Parts: sequence; structure tokens; C-alpha cells
Amino acid sequence: MSAIDIDWDRDGRQAGYLHLPNSTNVSAWQDLRVPVYLFRNGEGPCTLLLGGNHGDEYEGITGLSALAHSLDPAGITGSVIIVPALNLPAVLAGARLSPVDGRNLNREFPGDPRGSLTQRLAALVVSELVPRADAVYDIHSGGRSLLFAPCTLVHEQADGELTRRCLAAADSFGAPFTVVIREPHAGQMLDDVVERSGRLMVSSELGGSAAISPGTMGLTRDGLLRLLAHLGHLSAADLPPAAPGRRLVVPGPQAYLHADDLGTYEPMVEIGRSVAEGTVIGRLHFVDRADRAPQPLRAPLGGILLCVHGQGLVRRDDVIAVIAVPYGE
Amino acid sequence: MSAIDIDWDRDGRQAGYLHLPNSTNVSAWQDLRVPVYLFRNGEGPCTLLLGGNHGDEYEGITGLSALAHSLDPAGITGSVIIVPALNLPAVLAGARLSPVDGRNLNREFPGDPRGSLTQRLAALVVSELVPRADAVYDIHSGGRSLLFAPCTLVHEQADGELTRRCLAAADSFGAPFTVVIREPHAGQMLDDVVERSGRLMVSSELGGSAAISPGTMGLTRDGLLRLLAHLGHLSAADLPPAAPGRRLVVPGPQAYLHADDLGTYEPMVEIGRSVAEGTVIGRLHFVDRADRAPQPLRAPLGGILLCVHGQGLVRRDDVIAVIAVPYGE
Amino acid sequence: MSAIDIDWDRDGRQAGYLHLPNSTNVSAWQDLRVPVYLFRNGEGPCTLLLGGNHGDEYEGITGLSALAHSLDPAGITGSVIIVPALNLPAVLAGARLSPVDGRNLNREFPGDPRGSLTQRLAALVVSELVPRADAVYDIHSGGRSLLFAPCTLVHEQADGELTRRCLAAADSFGAPFTVVIREPHAGQMLDDVVERSGRLMVSSELGGSAAISPGTMGLTRDGLLRLLAHLGHLSAADLPPAAPGRRLVVPGPQAYLHADDLGTYEPMVEIGRSVAEGTVIGRLHFVDRADRAPQPLRAPLGGILLCVHGQGLVRRDDVIAVIAVPYGE
Amino acid sequence: MSAIDIDWDRDGRQAGYLHLPNSTNVSAWQDLRVPVYLFRNGEGPCTLLLGGNHGDEYEGITGLSALAHSLDPAGITGSVIIVPALNLPAVLAGARLSPVDGRNLNREFPGDPRGSLTQRLAALVVSELVPRADAVYDIHSGGRSLLFAPCTLVHEQADGELTRRCLAAADSFGAPFTVVIREPHAGQMLDDVVERSGRLMVSSELGGSAAISPGTMGLTRDGLLRLLAHLGHLSAADLPPAAPGRRLVVPGPQAYLHADDLGTYEPMVEIGRSVAEGTVIGRLHFVDRADRAPQPLRAPLGGILLCVHGQGLVRRDDVIAVIAVPYGE
Amino acid sequence: MSAIDIDWDRDGRQAGYLHLPNSTNVSAWQDLRVPVYLFRNGEGPCTLLLGGNHGDEYEGITGLSALAHSLDPAGITGSVIIVPALNLPAVLAGARLSPVDGRNLNREFPGDPRGSLTQRLAALVVSELVPRADAVYDIHSGGRSLLFAPCTLVHEQADGELTRRCLAAADSFGAPFTVVIREPHAGQMLDDVVERSGRLMVSSELGGSAAISPGTMGLTRDGLLRLLAHLGHLSAADLPPAAPGRRLVVPGPQAYLHADDLGTYEPMVEIGRSVAEGTVIGRLHFVDRADRAPQPLRAPLGGILLCVHGQGLVRRDDVIAVIAVPYGE
Amino acid sequence: MSAIDIDWDRDGRQAGYLHLPNSTNVSAWQDLRVPVYLFRNGEGPCTLLLGGNHGDEYEGITGLSALAHSLDPAGITGSVIIVPALNLPAVLAGARLSPVDGRNLNREFPGDPRGSLTQRLAALVVSELVPRADAVYDIHSGGRSLLFAPCTLVHEQADGELTRRCLAAADSFGAPFTVVIREPHAGQMLDDVVERSGRLMVSSELGGSAAISPGTMGLTRDGLLRLLAHLGHLSAADLPPAAPGRRLVVPGPQAYLHADDLGTYEPMVEIGRSVAEGTVIGRLHFVDRADRAPQPLRAPLGGILLCVHGQGLVRRDDVIAVIAVPYGE
Repeated sequence: MSAIDIDWDRDGRQAGYLHLPNSTNVSAWQDLRVPVYLFRNGEGPCTLLLGGNHGDEYEGITGLSALAHSLDPAGITGSVIIVPALNLPAVLAGARLSPVDGRNLNREFPGDPRGSLTQRLAALVVSELVPRADAVYDIHSGGRSLLFAPCTLVHEQADGELTRRCLAAADSFGAPFTVVIREPHAGQMLDDVVERSGRLMVSSELGGSAAISPGTMGLTRDGLLRLLAHLGHLSAADLPPAAPGRRLVVPGPQAYLHADDLGTYEPMVEIGRSVAEGTVIGRLHFVDRADRAPQPLRAPLGGILLCVHGQGLVRRDDVIAVIAVPYGE
Repeated sequence: MSAIDIDWDRDGRQAGYLHLPNSTNVSAWQDLRVPVYLFRNGEGPCTLLLGGNHGDEYEGITGLSALAHSLDPAGITGSVIIVPALNLPAVLAGARLSPVDGRNLNREFPGDPRGSLTQRLAALVVSELVPRADAVYDIHSGGRSLLFAPCTLVHEQADGELTRRCLAAADSFGAPFTVVIREPHAGQMLDDVVERSGRLMVSSELGGSAAISPGTMGLTRDGLLRLLAHLGHLSAADLPPAAPGRRLVVPGPQAYLHADDLGTYEPMVEIGRSVAEGTVIGRLHFVDRADRAPQPLRAPLGGILLCVHGQGLVRRDDVIAVIAVPYGE
Repeated sequence: MSAIDIDWDRDGRQAGYLHLPNSTNVSAWQDLRVPVYLFRNGEGPCTLLLGGNHGDEYEGITGLSALAHSLDPAGITGSVIIVPALNLPAVLAGARLSPVDGRNLNREFPGDPRGSLTQRLAALVVSELVPRADAVYDIHSGGRSLLFAPCTLVHEQADGELTRRCLAAADSFGAPFTVVIREPHAGQMLDDVVERSGRLMVSSELGGSAAISPGTMGLTRDGLLRLLAHLGHLSAADLPPAAPGRRLVVPGPQAYLHADDLGTYEPMVEIGRSVAEGTVIGRLHFVDRADRAPQPLRAPLGGILLCVHGQGLVRRDDVIAVIAVPYGE
Repeated sequence: MSAIDIDWDRDGRQAGYLHLPNSTNVSAWQDLRVPVYLFRNGEGPCTLLLGGNHGDEYEGITGLSALAHSLDPAGITGSVIIVPALNLPAVLAGARLSPVDGRNLNREFPGDPRGSLTQRLAALVVSELVPRADAVYDIHSGGRSLLFAPCTLVHEQADGELTRRCLAAADSFGAPFTVVIREPHAGQMLDDVVERSGRLMVSSELGGSAAISPGTMGLTRDGLLRLLAHLGHLSAADLPPAAPGRRLVVPGPQAYLHADDLGTYEPMVEIGRSVAEGTVIGRLHFVDRADRAPQPLRAPLGGILLCVHGQGLVRRDDVIAVIAVPYGE
Repeated sequence: MSAIDIDWDRDGRQAGYLHLPNSTNVSAWQDLRVPVYLFRNGEGPCTLLLGGNHGDEYEGITGLSALAHSLDPAGITGSVIIVPALNLPAVLAGARLSPVDGRNLNREFPGDPRGSLTQRLAALVVSELVPRADAVYDIHSGGRSLLFAPCTLVHEQADGELTRRCLAAADSFGAPFTVVIREPHAGQMLDDVVERSGRLMVSSELGGSAAISPGTMGLTRDGLLRLLAHLGHLSAADLPPAAPGRRLVVPGPQAYLHADDLGTYEPMVEIGRSVAEGTVIGRLHFVDRADRAPQPLRAPLGGILLCVHGQGLVRRDDVIAVIAVPYGE
Repeated sequence: MSAIDIDWDRDGRQAGYLHLPNSTNVSAWQDLRVPVYLFRNGEGPCTLLLGGNHGDEYEGITGLSALAHSLDPAGITGSVIIVPALNLPAVLAGARLSPVDGRNLNREFPGDPRGSLTQRLAALVVSELVPRADAVYDIHSGGRSLLFAPCTLVHEQADGELTRRCLAAADSFGAPFTVVIREPHAGQMLDDVVERSGRLMVSSELGGSAAISPGTMGLTRDGLLRLLAHLGHLSAADLPPAAPGRRLVVPGPQAYLHADDLGTYEPMVEIGRSVAEGTVIGRLHFVDRADRAPQPLRAPLGGILLCVHGQGLVRRDDVIAVIAVPYGE
């Protein structure tokens, strides 16, 4: 049980596992195995593609599995590492967090090799996968509780040139939007580890509601090829074309609308559309109260309705909407 | 605590509650209150509109709450009874089944007045609400695990004239499809109670994935007005128009495709589209196995792809797809 | 494993068990044993004393255990049967409902000998214990979610003479109040089984909050002796005296105040005190909302504040207060 | 989805499913499929072999799966129906009871076609499988909490000839012991349904502790062939021989030793050995108490130590031992 | 989402929130909001008042909410910061520990800004609230499992003058007792952080059993005003008077009586009363055992019965009683 | 509540407790007490004997309890410290991991005095028990999910002489096998702490399946006396003799066979037997699939079948078998 049964120097396609020893009440010496694929064709750039950081975000999981079963190693340059279902226990549970220790993988970086399963998984990614890569693409999709207009995400970094390169890579994917964002917990995310090491980092939010559609699946399939071409692994000829997307930025806490009460959400505006500040984008219905009228929900800013709540039921403190505004225009 | 604090003979709008006594570890003498609305304007037909039979199907819940806060009692004829969130504990939990007793309300009819909470709720509907109504519309939407092309549903009944009237009412809603179906558990559903009493019964599946979109919300809002007009409560003038829908039938068990393994679902065909028998409508990805290729999923029949799995994760025995074929053509 | 290992015809003190076969994941052939005591001294009246019908009501459980370890069989007339912890799994869990099947024993009468554990326990009481008794006293104490001014309870019955005898027995206990009440679920309670058989039935609510105090413990200890004397088992000489109590009635649903929201409860009036209709008896604090002022809670009727919520936290639909008014004055 | 996709009149080997519609929070229209096999070679006797009635008893589950993948239909006479994992949800959970509804299948007979999943499963067995069979063999193995000396079981019935035939069939299996027993809950077991219909019924307890050994696996494999020969399906030639077993009876409640406290169990006598009344067969250790010495556990009767607790941890009311005595000698 | 939306330099009353980002399976980007109030009137002392450190201790939660809705900012000197429900998830669950991560807030100080929710909450208190305050009053009330004679608490510290000032502040509240105590886990409590910074720290135990009474509510309301006057925020005129309390000390581990077995608790002495060493203060009843007599429970020391078990059910290792003795007399 | 109420310098037998303060929703100030025994007779070697490191491994728990109630302090030399049920909450739950915090004690060393209960327990062992001992024997038994041929275990260490002494001590126990092993998580185990301090460390795996047999119980009882004699506490005369065991080594990850799917396990080879590489040692049965044949399971190496899965149900990633090969021959 070496940690990863891949020979990193061998050309061709390999299918192996990350091995994580785990001990539970029903399996004392469990060997938790997370599939990993290497496609290699000589020297060249190395890109790490990750899905399933959160277990209920399916475009990355399914899109990378499809890629891992269709990519021709002879047709690429350099190395492409694919982990379709990184937080495998969460993926198998259909949940954001790991059912093993209740932790959110993307709040545990850089991890702890002596910690709980999720913490050890984070540490393994940091010690064994990230150092092999020039670029990392971590595919997210909102998960059960959020629904996004398909977009790639980048962080603005101190190094302007690195930011510029990340933006270009994000644009290459061909999603309708490329979004600049800075989460309050950025310091505990994979992105931070990659960025601080000077590597190229791209993320995304390609859908949500814990579902997946033919449209977002198709975007993921084509976008992955476009990104691999941009990063030098594939020839740009014969690639599926993409309409030019828009660059947006989530300007700060004022762009978020949170719920004040439990209720069901009546959506009135499609994601991806423009709204003016104060536009009624939906209503909250207090279905346990015969005496309360629905509450109008207003856009906190003018801009693009980037994200809405991903479920019909909303609880206090949940995100109802996120607005993004034009970036660098 | 009379069972329902509505005066059924009073004109105008009333907002009250179904009262269900309940006893839990944290509330010995709980008075569970389910909102109910009566809109009445003199003698005339009486229609019962129900949402939240399953707690994670939002078009009915939210659409009926919106109607209950917008309908003008002076503008209608007869009585309209609205219960937006019938299985309220399930609705507040965002779940199909009641968290109180784990039961599926729509498998408990005609209910039991001495049984568990869900059984007593079913009995209350049967004894206190159904007898007041000439027609019942029970709005469903797939729930978390299913996603439907928006449709109204009717059962084919021994009484051909009643079937014809149900079909006409279902058509009036204006969904893209009107579907004839017979579930294996029909004898335990509300539909059966209503139909056996000779009343008009319509159901629906307006969406799914435990989410709701501006499109299905708009269809629900407009369709409810069209149905109320069809049933004689509203004037047909000034109603939102609907394109004529198609009548389909789910011909039997051979129309269902179930999963044989746990995996993530790659959708390839949009719901509502025509497929030939054997068409690959998607693939199942075995994301815990580096050694298994994705499995193609084929349409078991030629027809319309009426329903697909509503989540990205599929487990053995889950429905992956349901095909419907033209009805009565 | 006969159902009860007591020889009903033998004089003296016996300590045995009700045996209930049960089968769980960790105990295939469990012999669940509920302690039962018989004190017998020749022919004479037979009284059945029950505690722990609900598992978190301690005056009955502890008071009857104390009696079972102090009563002298030579000093009594007839038979006294004592079951201090009837719903033993609930008692051992400190909960109202049975943790085995989630059921409320006092909503399961007359029980079902083929049903779940709680249903079989109810059936055993009805078939094996009630028929031996002339009178039944089932001691309740509010449980976690309610707090009562100490009182005995009786139901008003069709047979006025039986009602009169029940009231007299209830008065003999010496609680501050004797209360006439009719619960909405009376038909599923032990009381109903006993009353319909023409036996004398008394219940009580001696405290609550899942706690017990020296004062309510003392009342229980003395009251049991006074009741046994009243029923002919003990000589009235040397009994602890009791101040005469007041007879009250809970007149109907209008006497209950239920919560409309989750909050913490600020009590302003002691239980057992008189209040006028509309008196502010407390306030509800919405501690998750910086923008909501506390809500005054008003007495729905004038009368005695018989019962308040037993915990600091109140949830929607919980009982906040019950008012009782003078009975038969 | 007919209930069982087996053609009962077709010769050869068929592998199909019992179909049970089920509805959960994560699968609205689940088609629960329980494997069933038919081996048929013309007219002749029909035997029904069942494993997994309790989900953690493995000799039946695994032994019948092995038989279903090795039996040659051309080599038999009549029909053999095999259901290796009857209570499939319990089997997949490694638990005695169904995780779906918490019910014990073998306390739910004759079942309820409108009830919960386990109740519907029982009803399906009674309506669709039992009527096809002349003999039923339901293989049990103690489960997690019990450990048996390998034995077949029969009930003594009013019809002495039927009892004699059941005993002969049980003997033919070749276990060390054939045991006559009458459980207190016999009226809710499958055995009762079969026996009351005049069919031949045999059960067993072939091991326990939720484990399985090469020895009990081998006994099961060979015993099944011997039983099939006895019932007329196979020729007796070339069968694995068995030593003659002993007939025992569990005489009644006095044969059971139950625990009075939680502790760990120190076994001192091997199962299957003879003990005198009062023999210390083990001790209970109170490992949370530094002040309590181990408690000796004594055989309640003289006889064979048929069964002991199957786990190292014992809780109050658990079975510690069962003694059987010679039958009919 | 700055961490706290209060302008600390603005006079008047402000009602805002502590913002804690949280991520769960049902809310990816939850903005957990804990109400906080600032009352400011110019320069002057700053006092921090905290309730809900444990979620089931109601005098602080409800008393501080009442104060936050009644205090007149124009009538005070300096600043008063009020957080009525600090561990809000625990308060909303009615539980001692946070349901989010299972942690006890008062064992997590000084907290961890990268840790789980409770650890981040502790860190936020330490970094953002404590540094603004000259004095901190953290109001406790025993919680579900303990019941205290109302008292304020202080720790004896190396700095005698600081101890003296803490005692004087504690006395000013006007509870019947001021108690000096040193818990074994003191190093992980808020008290330690405050004390080590040289600030004035007072705590309390004002009741318990997860309930609240008019009496303890009144003491809390009046005591808070007396404390604010003592600390220089209010004029002492017109304050509700308090009888002088007694100073006690819990001398060490020998003052605690723990349970050796599960049972129900029969209380015999009221809290706050004097007992001699060896006095029987109650009995433990073993209600699952017909063969065990109740166990007398004796005071381990002579002194005041400061605290008893707060529920009727006691488990092994629970506190049954705590004795306090006169301090510094 | 000093941490351990044992006087380490007093001769004779003492029975006391490790005290661990704990705080839960139902016990705010719990004093968790873990029994510990000291047998001392003057100066001499000190040996620490531990059971219940994992809560479902019974030979150590029960064998050490038996020893603690039979050893004569006057008959020994030096000191023997016995903790039969170290992880007491896990032992009382019959589980490998602590139910309090879900942690595996033997992955938490050297512990954390400010951490969760299991972490504090580990720290207490390291600070208070290990330093008193010259040798530590930590008795394991596979637990629910594994079943071992009885063996003692040692780690190969940098210090060859210490390794030699550990092997000799392990041999003295008299199990059929002495096994050298290096777990992947060794750095978090108690063994590592003891070895790094230069003390003698022996462990074992004496059985499994969460059960215990007369045979493994007898080996434990006798082996403990042989080990105490070897370590100088007892005279070797009159000891129960043991056959010489074999020394084996688990050579590395290639010695483990893990499951690729859920199924039931058909064992074909007894533990402790020799197998050739590729031998079919069992089969996996896919009992939910009528279409899948059983999968043969082959020995990954030639050697002794040291360990097999301890339950009839196997899940993906579980250990099915471990092979050991001769050591140092």
C-alpha cells in the first residue's frame, strides 16, 4: 500500500488508486481507494484535474470520469492527472461533506498527515499530487444548496502576471462567465496552497442542485478539451468552439443575499440574467404560517444573477442569491 | 382545537389551520397546524387544491401559497380550498417522507384516525376535505430523486366518462404533456379515494430534483388559473394562453429503466425529447472503480423521455428513466 | 417466561417481572423484564398503581419504587399491584416515548399482542393487569415539555356515579388541585380502557420538566398512602394530613395557548396562581433575531395557570400554557 | 414489474427477482429486487430454500448462493426454488432487522400487502412462494447475538405424522443436533404459516456471531444436498455422508439463562457439550466497576449447551445460554 | 460580511450580528448570524454580558434578551455589549453542546480561527469582544443535568486584588450565594482567557434543569441592573434591593458526589440548605431491578447543598450533588 | 478527582480509577471512571497490562479482569498494573471506536491533554501509566471485522537488542504464532510511544469477530501468567506449559487481500493453515445480483493464513485476508 500506485514516469494510460488507510467500527484495517488516472506522453506540461472535492457536485465527477475513459494518451503532450472523485466517501454518500468525519475537504488544506480521514486526504493531495503539476483545475458545481450560471473562477493574486495567466486559462474553458472571487475562508482551500506555490490555479461552478443536465455535461466535456489545448496538451485544431464569455467579479459581502427565515423559494429571474439593484428576483413563502404573506427578495446590487439557492426549501442564513458585476471593464 | 378552524359556509377569504394533535419527546401536547385557505363566493363548484403531499416537491407548495395570497374571493364562483403544504413536517424537513413517523403520505390513504401522525393526516383529508370537493388537484413534482418533463397525470378508470372529464381538466392546465399512468401502489394513494367516490381527480409532475425554476413556477401559476377557469371558478377571458399539450401514456413496467449499480449519471438527452428504442440516453460512471468503464444506458422503449433521475448520484434499484408513448392516437 | 412471574393468590410481598420477548439487532431473543410488585393480605379490594407510562415523569416512577420498598404487606387489606416503571425502555432512556419503536404507550391502548414492543406492552396491561384491579391510578408528571401545578386528573364519564367516585378518589390524594379534563386522544389512552370496563380510574400530573423536587416527591409519598386508605387498603389513622384541594376543569381547546414561533420563554406568573383573561403571563424571546422584540404571551382565559412549558426553549406548536377554571361551583 | 420474473413452468435454471416497489427520501420509485432462482426438471416435488430471513445469519445466505451457482437443473427431479437473501435490505446492512422499517421479518408473517416494506415482503412470500412448495427450509444461524451448536429445528405440531416427517427431513441434513423448540412468538413466524397449510417445514441454527467458518460452510453445503436427496430431488448415491445426529428438545422457559447486568462474557464450556445443572458455564465481568467481582453463570438445567451469547459484550436481558435435553428417548 | 456589523464608536443602541461562515451538507455558504447589541453613551467602562455559552441554560439567554430590549442607552455611562445567545446553534437545539460539531464552547477557549464552527466562535470572542471589555459576565445556569441554588461564581487568582474585585462584582448581583470554585478544565474556559488578561471576570449558576422560573428570571433581571450599577454604568439609586448573600467555596473533588449506577433520583433536601456530613440527601432507585432496594445517598461533606442532579434520571458517573462550605470566614 | 486514585508505593492489591472529566448534553460534569488495579510486592519490575484499547476485542478485556480478580499480590515480585477496559466508552458500546468522539484510541497517541475525550485518555496513559512501567503488553483481538489465528505481535526496531527482548517476551506468552509487523499508522499507536522510550512493548491479536471462545480465553489466562513469569513477577514453576510457537512476519502491503465489492464471504481455509500463492481461500457472493457468479479469492502470497474477515458481510476496501511468512528462518 504505497500511497499511490501510479508510475509517474511511464508513458501511456494508467489507472490506479490513492490508498488511504482508515479504521472504522466495521472495518479495522480499511484500505480506502480513490481512483486516479495518469495520461502521459513524454516530457511536457503537467496538469492536475480534480472532481469531487465536494461530493455532490457532478459536472466535475462525471466529466472527468468521461475524460478518463476517452482521452488517448498518444494524442497528448506531457502529463494529465485525473482524479474524478477526490473526496470519495462524500461522493458515494451524495453529500458535500465526508460522512466519515463530517469535514469539508476544501476547508482542510494544507491538511494533516496524522489527522482524520479528510485531513489526511488533503495532506496527500498537497504532498503527492500538487507538486507534480504546473496547473490545477478543481471543478466545482454549487452542490445541493446552490445553483450557478456556469462559470470558471479565479482568485486575484498579489502576482498580477499569475492572475493574468489564471484568467486566460479560465477563459479558455468556454463557460458563459469567468468570475473573480475571494471567499472568506480562502486560506483553508486547495486554491491557496496551489497559488502560494506559484502554480496556475483555476476553479469553477458549473451548475448545482446536486443534479446535472445534458447542457452542463456537454459544456464540461468540451471545456476540458479546450482547457487542455490552452495548457499545451492538445492541438487546438478540431476543438469544439465556444462563444466568448464575460468576465465578472463578486465585489464583496454586499453581493450576497441571505435568508432571514425558513420558507420555500419562488424564483422569478433566471440565473445569468442582468438585474437592477432592488429588482424583485423572487419571494419567500412561509408555508407553515397561514398569517404571513410572501416576502419579496430584492437584488442587493445591480449586475448578473450569478447564483441562486439550489433547493426549493430555504433556511435562515442560507444564500438566496449572489450578484456579480463586470470585471475590469 | 376543532379539527379545522374554517367556517365552510362563509363567503370571502379565510386563512386557518388543520389541527393535528401530536406527542413527541420534546412536545407532549403539540398542536401541529397545517395552513388551509378557503376562497368562497356563493354556491357553486368546490375544488380542493393540494401541495406538499410529498415534502420536497415545490411547484405545488409554492404555487399554491402564491395563489392563496393573490386570489380575489370576489372574483370567483363557488369554493376553492387550498392546502399548500399538506404534509407539513415533511415540507419543513425538505423531505419526501414525514420525519415524524417515516411514512409516505401518498401510500397511507385512506388513513387511520388512530394511527401515527401521517396516517391521521390522511384520514383527516379523507373525512374532512375530500367530501367537500367536486374536484381534487394534487400537485406533485418528482421530488429529489426524479425529474419530469412538466405534465399533468390522470388514471384510466372503469368509468370512461369520468376518465374523459379528468383528461379534459388535466389538459386545461396547459402543461406540455398530459400523461395517463397506473402506479403499482395506486390503491394506497389519495387518487384512489377520490376516484372511487366519483369525484374528478387530477395530479401532476411539474419538475423535480427538489428544486424549482422560474419556468416551472410560471407554468404552475398560469396553469392553476386555467384549471380554475375550466372547473367553472373563473371566467376564461384574460387567462394566460397555453400551447396545446400532448397526451401520452406510460404503458407499463417495461417503460421504466432502473439502475443496476451505484454510480454517477451522465445525461445525454433532454427530458421531453423523442427517443428510439435502444437510444443511448446516458451513461453510468462507477467512480469508485478505476477498472470499470462507464455503462451505456439505453431507452427501453421508443417514445418521449418523460422522466430521468433527479440527482447526479444513482443507487441500485433507482429509476433512471421513464418513457411515455402517445395515448389514444 | 410466563408473561408475569407473580402468584396472584399468595399473601405477602412479591417482587417479579412482566416478561416481554423482544428482538433487536443486538439481542435476538431478549427477555425484556419490567419489575412488578404484589402486596397482598387476604381478600379485599385490588388497586393497580402505575408509574412510567411516559418515561420522563418521575414522581410516579420514584414514588412507586419507594412505596414498593416500604409498604408492609401485613398492614394492608386486599391487594396492591405496583409497576413503577411501566414503559421501561422509555424510563431507561429518560424519554417520553419508547426508544424501541418510537411509540407513545398512552396512545396505544388497548394494544396489539402481535404488534411492536409498546403495542404488546399495552396489550399485556389490558389483558393481565387491569382485569385484576378494582381501581387504577396512573401517575403522570408532565414530562420534559410541560410543568404542572400538582394535580390529580379525572375524566367526566357517562356514568355520573362513576365520575363522582373517581373525583372522590382523586381528592383523597391531597394534591392542591383535582382537575377534570378530556384529551383529544382519550380513546387511545389507558384511562379509556379502564373506564369503559366500569373500573375506577384516576390519573395525575404531579410536576414536570423531567425533574423532581423534594416537595413533589413528598406529596407523592403521602398522597399514595392517603389514596390507599381511601380505597380501603390502609387505616386512615396516622395518615399524613392534606389541605383540601380545589376542583378545576380544563374547559376545552380555548384553554390552551400554543407557540407560534421558536423562542425562549420568559415566565412571569407562577403555576397554580389565578390570572385574568389577557394577563401577560410571560414573553417569548426570538434569540436568533436582533430585529425582533419579545412577544407578550397572554392568558387565553381567566382562571388558574395550571400548566406552563417545561423547558426554557419553546418551538412552534408547543403548549405554552393551560388554564383551568373552577369545576362544579 | 410483475412481482416475480420467473416462469414457473419452464424447465432449466432461471435467475430472476422478487420486485418490491419502495419509496424513500432518496428514491421515490425504487424497484427493490431480491434474487430468486428456479431449478426445474419436469413434474415432481417442489422445495423452497430460504436464506437471509435475518440479515446477519450467513450459512443460509452464502450456502444457498453457492448452491444456486452450482446445482445442475438436468440432474434434479421436480423444482427447487432458492432465495439466498430474502430480507435483502437487512442482508446488505449486515443486520438482523430491516434498516428500511426496523422490522424483524420473522415476526411479520403472514404479512400485509399494504404495510411497510418488510410486511409486504412477508405477504409476497406467503402469497407467491409458499403455495408453490411442498416443503420449506428456512436457514437461520443465530445472528450477531447468539452462537449455536449447529442444529436443524422443528416445531412439534398437532399433526403427529407431519411432525414425524419434519423430524426426518431435519435429520437428513446431517447436523450434529436436531432440536424441537417452540418460540413464544411462533404465531408470527414463517414456520407457522407453512405448518398450518400442512406443508413440511424445517428450520435451523447453523452457527452465529454474524460470522461463518469453513466448518459450518461445509456442513451447509453438504447438508443441503442431503436434504434435497431426502426430499426426492437428487439421487442419494454419491452424497457426502453425515454422522448420525442427536435429537434434543428445548423444554421451555426454564432452559434459558438471561443476563442481569451489562458485562463481558467469559465462556468456560464449548457449545455442544454436556453440562450438569448448576455447572459454572462462564462468568460475567463488570468491567466498568473496580469494586465488583465476576459473577459465575450456572447452567439452569442439565443437558447439552445448545447456544451461548454470540458476542463478548452482554447486556441486561440478553440470552447467555440455552440448554437442550434429549428428545423422545 | 465583516465579522461583526457593529460600529463600536457610535453612541446609542445598535443591534447587529456576529457573522460566522459555515458550510454544511444543506448550506454550502451559510452566514451564521449571532445577535449582538451595543449600548453606548460616551467614554467610560465597557462590560461584556454573555448568555448561551451553553445552549440549555436559560436565565442568561432570556435575561440578556430582556435587557437588550429594555435598556435605555441614554441612561447609562460607557458601553455595554450584550450577546444573549452566544452558542446560537446549541441554543436553537436546546442543548449544551453545539449540534454542528458536537463541541462544548466553554472547553474550546482560546479557540482556533481555522477550526470547526465552535472553535472559530471561541476565537472570535477572544479576538473581537474580550479586548473591548473591562469586565466580562458569563451567565450559566446548570443546564439540563444540574440544578443549582442561584449563585455567582468567581475563580481565586494569583492576583489577590483582582480576586477581591471579582468577588465584589459577584456579590453585587445579589444572588443568595457567591461561590469560589476551580474546575478541573479551567484552562480551556473563557474565564481563563479573561483572567489572564487582567480583566474582571464573573460567572454564575442561576438555576438549571433546562428550565426557568419566575423567581430565577426575576433575580437575573434585577441582578443585571445591580451589577451594571456596581461596574459604573448605572446610578445605584432606584435599583431593586437584594438581601446580602453568603460567600462559599467548593473546596475540591471531595465535595462532589457521583452516581455509581443508573437510577431515578429521589431528592430529600432542598438546594441551598445546610447538611451535615453523612446526611442522607436522597436515594437512587434501580427501577429495572425488582431485587434491588434503593441506595441512600449521603452528603460527602458538611456544608450547603449547592447543586443536585437536574433530571429525574441519573446515569453512572453523573454528578448527584455538590457541597460548598463557608469561604473566608 | 486526582487523575488516578492509586497509591503507587503501597504494597498489596488496590482497585481504583482513572478519572476523566467529560461534558455531554446529558451530563455537564461527568466523572468518567476507568478501573485500574495495582498489584505490588516490594521493589522489582513493573509491567503494565492493557485491555480494551479497542472496545470490541474481548480476550484482553475479560482476561485482564479475570487476572485482576485472581492474582495474589503476596505471590508476585514488583508491580503489575492492570487496566482491563482502557477505552471504557468503546467497551460499554461494544465498538472499536469511542462513541463519545468517534475516535480510534490507538491512532491518537501520544494524545492531547486539551483535546477530546479519547485524546485526553491517550495523554493520560502516556503521562501517568507508561512512565511507571518497564514493559507494556497491549492486548488486541481483531475486533468485529477481523479474525486472527492467535498470535502475539512485535515491531522490528532500530535497536536490535530491544527487538530481541520484545520477541522473547512475546514468545513467552505461548500463542501459536509470534508475528513481526509494521502498520502504516504505527506512528500514532501506543506501541510507538513505548518503543521510543526504550521500554519493552508487546501486543497481540488473540481472536476476533467481537466474540470470545473457551479456547482463546484459556490461552489468554495461561499466557498472561507465562508472560508475568518471563518478566520476573512470578516463579516459572507450576506454570501452565505451552507448545513452542512459530515466528512469522507480515512482509508488507503485498500480504493483504482487500475486497473490491460488497458481498458475503465463503471461507474455505481455516486460519493458521499454510497456503500456496494463488490458492483459492474463499469466494465472495454478490447476493443482490442474480446475474453475478461468486468471485474466487486467492492468496496473494504463499505462507500462513494469519487473518481473515471477521464477519459474514464484506464491504469494498475491507481486509479479506492477511498472509504471514516465516521470520528469520
